[in-house]
Amino acid sequence: MIKVIVAGFEGKMGRQVLDLINKSDDFELVAGYAPHAQTNALSVKVYNELAAIPKKVADVWIDFSLPTSVYQNSLTALEKGIRPVIGTTGLQPEQISSLQKIANQQKLGALLVPNFSLSAVLMIKLAKQAVQYFPEVEIIELHNARKVDAPSGTAKYTATQLAGDKEIPIHSVRLPGYIAHQEILFGGIGEALTIRQDSFDRSSFMPGVALAIRKIMHINQFVTGLENILE
Amino acid sequence: MIKVIVAGFEGKMGRQVLDLINKSDDFELVAGYAPHAQTNALSVKVYNELAAIPKKVADVWIDFSLPTSVYQNSLTALEKGIRPVIGTTGLQPEQISSLQKIANQQKLGALLVPNFSLSAVLMIKLAKQAVQYFPEVEIIELHNARKVDAPSGTAKYTATQLAGDKEIPIHSVRLPGYIAHQEILFGGIGEALTIRQDSFDRSSFMPGVALAIRKIMHINQFVTGLENILE
Amino acid sequence: MIKVIVAGFEGKMGRQVLDLINKSDDFELVAGYAPHAQTNALSVKVYNELAAIPKKVADVWIDFSLPTSVYQNSLTALEKGIRPVIGTTGLQPEQISSLQKIANQQKLGALLVPNFSLSAVLMIKLAKQAVQYFPEVEIIELHNARKVDAPSGTAKYTATQLAGDKEIPIHSVRLPGYIAHQEILFGGIGEALTIRQDSFDRSSFMPGVALAIRKIMHINQFVTGLENILE
Amino acid sequence: MIKVIVAGFEGKMGRQVLDLINKSDDFELVAGYAPHAQTNALSVKVYNELAAIPKKVADVWIDFSLPTSVYQNSLTALEKGIRPVIGTTGLQPEQISSLQKIANQQKLGALLVPNFSLSAVLMIKLAKQAVQYFPEVEIIELHNARKVDAPSGTAKYTATQLAGDKEIPIHSVRLPGYIAHQEILFGGIGEALTIRQDSFDRSSFMPGVALAIRKIMHINQFVTGLENILE
Repeated sequence: MIKVIVAGFEGKMGRQVLDLINKSDDFELVAGYAPHAQTNALSVKVYNELAAIPKKVADVWIDFSLPTSVYQNSLTALEKGIRPVIGTTGLQPEQISSLQKIANQQKLGALLVPNFSLSAVLMIKLAKQAVQYFPEVEIIELHNARKVDAPSGTAKYTATQLAGDKEIPIHSVRLPGYIAHQEILFGGIGEALTIRQDSFDRSSFMPGVALAIRKIMHINQFVTGLENILE
Repeated sequence: MIKVIVAGFEGKMGRQVLDLINKSDDFELVAGYAPHAQTNALSVKVYNELAAIPKKVADVWIDFSLPTSVYQNSLTALEKGIRPVIGTTGLQPEQISSLQKIANQQKLGALLVPNFSLSAVLMIKLAKQAVQYFPEVEIIELHNARKVDAPSGTAKYTATQLAGDKEIPIHSVRLPGYIAHQEILFGGIGEALTIRQDSFDRSSFMPGVALAIRKIMHINQFVTGLENILE
Repeated sequence: MIKVIVAGFEGKMGRQVLDLINKSDDFELVAGYAPHAQTNALSVKVYNELAAIPKKVADVWIDFSLPTSVYQNSLTALEKGIRPVIGTTGLQPEQISSLQKIANQQKLGALLVPNFSLSAVLMIKLAKQAVQYFPEVEIIELHNARKVDAPSGTAKYTATQLAGDKEIPIHSVRLPGYIAHQEILFGGIGEALTIRQDSFDRSSFMPGVALAIRKIMHINQFVTGLENILE
Repeated sequence: MIKVIVAGFEGKMGRQVLDLINKSDDFELVAGYAPHAQTNALSVKVYNELAAIPKKVADVWIDFSLPTSVYQNSLTALEKGIRPVIGTTGLQPEQISSLQKIANQQKLGALLVPNFSLSAVLMIKLAKQAVQYFPEVEIIELHNARKVDAPSGTAKYTATQLAGDKEIPIHSVRLPGYIAHQEILFGGIGEALTIRQDSFDRSSFMPGVALAIRKIMHINQFVTGLENILE
């Protein structure tokens, strides 16, 4: 039984995580943390202050809070001997370095997860193998017209993971109807290989969260990216 | 039986056209034209000079010659009462205007064909209908890494055919292995429509040439684009 | 301003139709019909009995009721001079014949719509043109694993629309994650053409409902399939 | 420099292998074997009889001969201390067992390669990883209408490699224009992953042959499938 505390349990992702824990036989919700939440909002203890959280109150700290809180939250988790699974964006490079140093010193698992989609994460993991045999590669990412940034974070991250000494072209399609999709196209002599990933629904992130909770129990350092804990 | 003269019969496309005529029950090769060809290169009369070609020697003039010759060739065809199917690139806008004026005055069919691929032509024709219901559209064209220009001519032509008052993004993928492919992506509320065309082989142009030969007999003006003679 | 009465306004589709009418400048909700609804459920008159509905109370009758009610509803609409847009499944062939006869005699527009997805409907319309040039065709339909029937109704309908004298193979993929997607693959000499449609969300049906309401005002007979009223 | 002997050098594949060796800096053609070939057909020694081939005349034996010859050829290669890369089909299960036993006893590399396409082989290798996270999977294979068998050998092989305790559906599309293509579709909660492979041209097999020649030098047993020697 893995004991979990959820930071940011009132948000969209947080609520889905509560639901995930509830449905999973090997997870147990032991507490929630949110500065302004009602203390009776959950069936378990709700903390409004980081200082009030006891040491080792949980095995795993799931963080879906705010960009402005994530660093302090993650630091607190590590100090209290709780393994952080960080799903919140907004950490600065030097903050990541600090967290990494502390986790590694303590030999405590810590996971920074830019993308919980298993299909996206697997796509990147598989593409890193494919690029060894097919070094010519381009990326097409397709997102809803409402998405303001381009290229997508996943596309940029994929490109850095695949690029050796050359630039990988990224094509960004923005159209209504589309949700979140990415294709990695590899070309070789007389042949082609394509890996495509489709995210149809936010529910697709929960299997990745479950995987992170289970895997973090078996690592003793800071790791970035779910693809690095896949077998 | 449609009588055909082939200009540029020694080139790659020209040879395939000879083969097509040979295999078709309703086409008859009556002559070839090429300035430097052996006069016995074909089983029929070979002309080395435009001036030597008799009036109405054929119903249709197929031109797969050179950018430097195509205007003079097409002009000669029209003057001699032969309907030109122009597959050679390189005509300037003012040359197209001249040919158009002459063909229309003579009420003689003339076809300028930027792309003989039926799948490409149909794609454009169908996309023009789709864009009325799905005005949000982007184009992805994928070609072999050896293709130097980008975007492809077909992609640019597609965009002009679909664009109303706004720019249509074109994404150009250049990879080894690929041949010539294009996708037109339409996005709507909660849904998407995609039309894709793949050219796997140069042989794919011959059904379009055959169609052009048959259709030009039934038109009496200058037409650009095979999609405008499809039913 | 087109006056609309909605039958089955309490269901999933019915509620979306109310929302659509509310948001559209040229539609006006004039009444609702549902046997067991509260009479004050809407801001307009709610009828519980067909007999109580006045003649010509609306221009268009939108039906998203039940398979057991749809025939009687549609019949009543026609008798009262209201053009029915029938989105409910369950009509028997002989019932369709009856409705068709009455609508045609009265020269009153009536629309039986198996699929309101514009992308699906356009796909079929475009495919009917493509099959004239590429008679070799196969269909792949991909749906969520929860969908129990295979092939899908849309795939079967597409096949009947495209088939001349031969069978068109339909491949049914059933996987979690997928929503509702269909590809029509055409193969020719050295080339291929593919038309693909993706339904990501139920909201995708509303543009089709809006189109049906607008178009039915301009037809004076019974028509099956939205693709037959597209330009 | 890896010394190579080619059995069946007069066939389509054999001729391409000669060309590959010729172009590669680290391969050296030392002999050819074909029962009925002219002895001066190559710039190197041509053998017409297996018995005449000296021990260890080459490091690697490439076999693109005939189903009726492949077993005796491979056996001879092993007996003469030459590592066989077997591209010819037709080996019976008990023949494979015999070859395997001999290669393993001698600790000599031997490779049976059902498919030299790197994109196909990589697809299978990557899919074996993906299926651990996405156990729901279906296969679509698309081939030219001339291909008589269905499902394709690659699709059947893929299915056996991915299947745990359940059947994997295979959909076979046969259309003109298409060459050889395969998609493996994985579905998960709210998401999908697809791996696609396109063979556009026979030339696509040569990088796989080159890889086999290089890798066989570093293995000391019988291996089936190029995917098992990829890193």
